[in-house]
Formats: sequence, C-alpha cells, structure tokens
Amino acid sequence: MRISELSSRSGVPVATIKYYRREGLLPEGRALNPTAVEYGEEHVRRPRLIRSLVQLGGLSVARTREVLDAVDRPLGAFETLGVVHHALPVPSVDGNGKSGKGHAGPDTDRDEAAPGEGAAARVEALIESMGWQISDESPHRPALAASLAALRRVGADYTADDLLPYARLATSTADLDFAQLDGIEDRIALAERAVVLTVLFEPVVRLLRRLAQEDANHRRHHRRACSRSGPPAG
Amino acid sequence: MRISELSSRSGVPVATIKYYRREGLLPEGRALNPTAVEYGEEHVRRPRLIRSLVQLGGLSVARTREVLDAVDRPLGAFETLGVVHHALPVPSVDGNGKSGKGHAGPDTDRDEAAPGEGAAARVEALIESMGWQISDESPHRPALAASLAALRRVGADYTADDLLPYARLATSTADLDFAQLDGIEDRIALAERAVVLTVLFEPVVRLLRRLAQEDANHRRHHRRACSRSGPPAG
Repeated sequence: MRISELSSRSGVPVATIKYYRREGLLPEGRALNPTAVEYGEEHVRRPRLIRSLVQLGGLSVARTREVLDAVDRPLGAFETLGVVHHALPVPSVDGNGKSGKGHAGPDTDRDEAAPGEGAAARVEALIESMGWQISDESPHRPALAASLAALRRVGADYTADDLLPYARLATSTADLDFAQLDGIEDRIALAERAVVLTVLFEPVVRLLRRLAQEDANHRRHHRRACSRSGPPAG
Repeated sequence: MRISELSSRSGVPVATIKYYRREGLLPEGRALNPTAVEYGEEHVRRPRLIRSLVQLGGLSVARTREVLDAVDRPLGAFETLGVVHHALPVPSVDGNGKSGKGHAGPDTDRDEAAPGEGAAARVEALIESMGWQISDESPHRPALAASLAALRRVGADYTADDLLPYARLATSTADLDFAQLDGIEDRIALAERAVVLTVLFEPVVRLLRRLAQEDANHRRHHRRACSRSGPPAG
C-alpha cells in the first residue's frame, strides 16, 4: 500500500508518518521509485504505537526508538511490558510525569531525587514486606523515595508499615490492570495497550479515588451526625 | 510576636509572609507602629496552609482566598474538606493537574472537557451503581467523563461495569485516606492535611500501582513459565 492508505488505515496523518520515517522510527518500506514507497501489513499498527508513545507518553524521539527496538526484538510479553513500563513518564511530587530516564542522564536523575537514606530504606522495607519483585533499574523506586521525602518535609511521615494497606490495594489494582492485557499476544498490540493503561487509564484511577474521597467524606459526616443525635431508643 | 518569629515558627520566609499579607491572604496583625506588626497564635499555622495551597496545590491567589474564606467560616470538617477537595488540581488526560475551576470561568472548563453524552452517562451510571454521593458541582465528574472519552478515541472503551472493580478499590483507598484524618478537629490542620493527602500523597498511590504492576508482570511471567514446564509429577 502507499503512504496515503497507510495513513487512512492507521489513522495517523501522512505528514506525521513522514516525520516518523525521517526520524527512523518507522521501518523502511519498499522503494518503488524515488518518490513512491510501498508499505506492507507489518507497517499498519506501527504509526499508532509511535503516536501513543510520543503524544500520550510524552517520550522523546530517542526514548521512543529504544522502546520500539525492544518491541522489535523477539522478547516475550514480559520483557516487552517491562521496557515500556520503565520508559513511560514517572509520577512525581510536582504532579507532572517525567520520563523514566528522560533527556538528562540517569546520574542527573539520581541526584535530582536525592531522597535521603531514610526514604530509600523505607521503600526497600515496603517492597520486602510485600514480597514484590522489582528490578534495580526501576525508576519507580527512587521516585517513591522522593515522594516520601517530600511528605516528610511538610511533616507528614509515613513508615513502610503505614503504606502496607495502600500497597495491598495497589496489588489488587495491578491485577485488574493485567486482566485487561490477558489474551493479547502480539507485542505491538501489547506495548500499545500498556501505554494506554499507564498513561490514559491512570487519570481514571486517580479520579475514582477523588470521587470515592468525596463519598467517604459524606459517609463520615452522616455517621457523625447520627451519633450526635444519640443512640437509638431500646 | 513579630514577623521574624512568625517566620521561624511557621517555617515560611519573611518575604513570603509579606507577599501573602499584601495579597490579603494573611489576616491583619495588630499594628504596633507604622513599621511593626504584632501577630498572635492564630497566625502561626496560616502561612504554612497558604504555602501548601499555592506551592503544592498550584492554586491561584484568588482560588487560595476562596479556600481560606471557607476555612475561616464556622463550617464543620465535612464542608471544609469539601471546599478544599474541589479547589485542588484535577487529574486530567495530559497528566498535569489543572485547578478545579482554575483561572478560566467554569463555562470554559465545561466546554474544554466536552466529553460527549456517552461518557457522561457512563460516569453517572458508575456513581449510581456505587451508591456514591457526589455533588453536582464536583469537578471530578466531567474530568472522569473526559478521560473516558479520551480512552474511547484510542479504541479503549470502558463501560460503567468495567470500572466497578476499580471503583470498589478506590473506595477502600479513600477509607484509608480518611483514617489519616481521624482525630484532626482543627479546621486549618484539616485543610492542610487534605492538601497534603491529595497533592503529595497521590504520587505515592500512583507509584505503588506502578511497582505493583511490575510485580504483577513478574508473577504472570512466572506462572506462564511454570505452566509451560508442565504439571508437577505425581
């Protein structure tokens, strides 16, 4: 197919596909002549994945290329998901996601977090208590330590034990997330879904917590109002 | 006490306190003479709350003033929490919180979300299924609808029923949140804690989900590897 059909089938504009091609993100098509390129079925889902990574994930072109390389390697679903998961923006205290490794080198990131031994030790204690298997390269360990350090700075101190009930609920949430991936074997589809689950579905999880908080406030208020009116007779 | 003591006791720099005073965010102290103002105990925790709202919450000065007015009114904990909760930045698809009403008027916000009837109806169905009490003014309803609409645009469609298990876990999380507020009766302390819980603790919840996802990926991989190696003998 020509680039126009690739565009209509992938839903990504021709100009955007050409940009991805110039950046080396799209595998070469078969050159028919100096101005026309023929694309195959293997190209169709690729522009959408790239767009997910760049536009939804906010990944740099270099980082997108790393993820695509991983998706192209004959890795299992486990490794593919791991690479995508660590590349996506990491939640941080200022509320804005920043990319796992991002534009700066890993050393800069480590300095930036500088969470102090206390916070890092609490994260390790929590991971151990939960029996979680987390790689040493996970960007989420130092990010969690940085968040705990920020909380301590405003006088809100959380021990590993304080976080355990939250961690257990997070495990249940992650199980629901993985149920959404069940049955997807294709690596490109899996990578795309992982981006959607992490980047687009995360606000849903956060908003459900906000709604549940409002309801919890109502329930607590109602309970107090009832207990103030005295115990029921009899 | 003088402004220097107010600064050291609240942990907020003198220049910042003066700025809050110029913006009318700090109640007037007692003027001793044209250049010296005497502050009382009632002022001590105020600069910290203002700083939480402005720096952590990212609230505009006008919006901060609204929240402080609510904290100053003789409202119960329920109403105080409600006002703070609706004023804080709302999670959105682009990953950046934006303030509930923000700088633009409410009408602009409503247009911006424009989630379509389908998404709004799914949010209402979910709230009804959960039996949640949510006010009509909640900024989290249209934000959730907008998130669902964004997911639909990338081909990930969620019905109210799909979201129910997530909503149940959100309820459990919100109950943990409110356990953290138990025993705090003072309105300023409560408002401050609500900001911390929402703005600073939210990244913790998100990062725990990320860590739990990595562990879930490991567990799923392990289960598959074991089932591939065949059932145990005997």
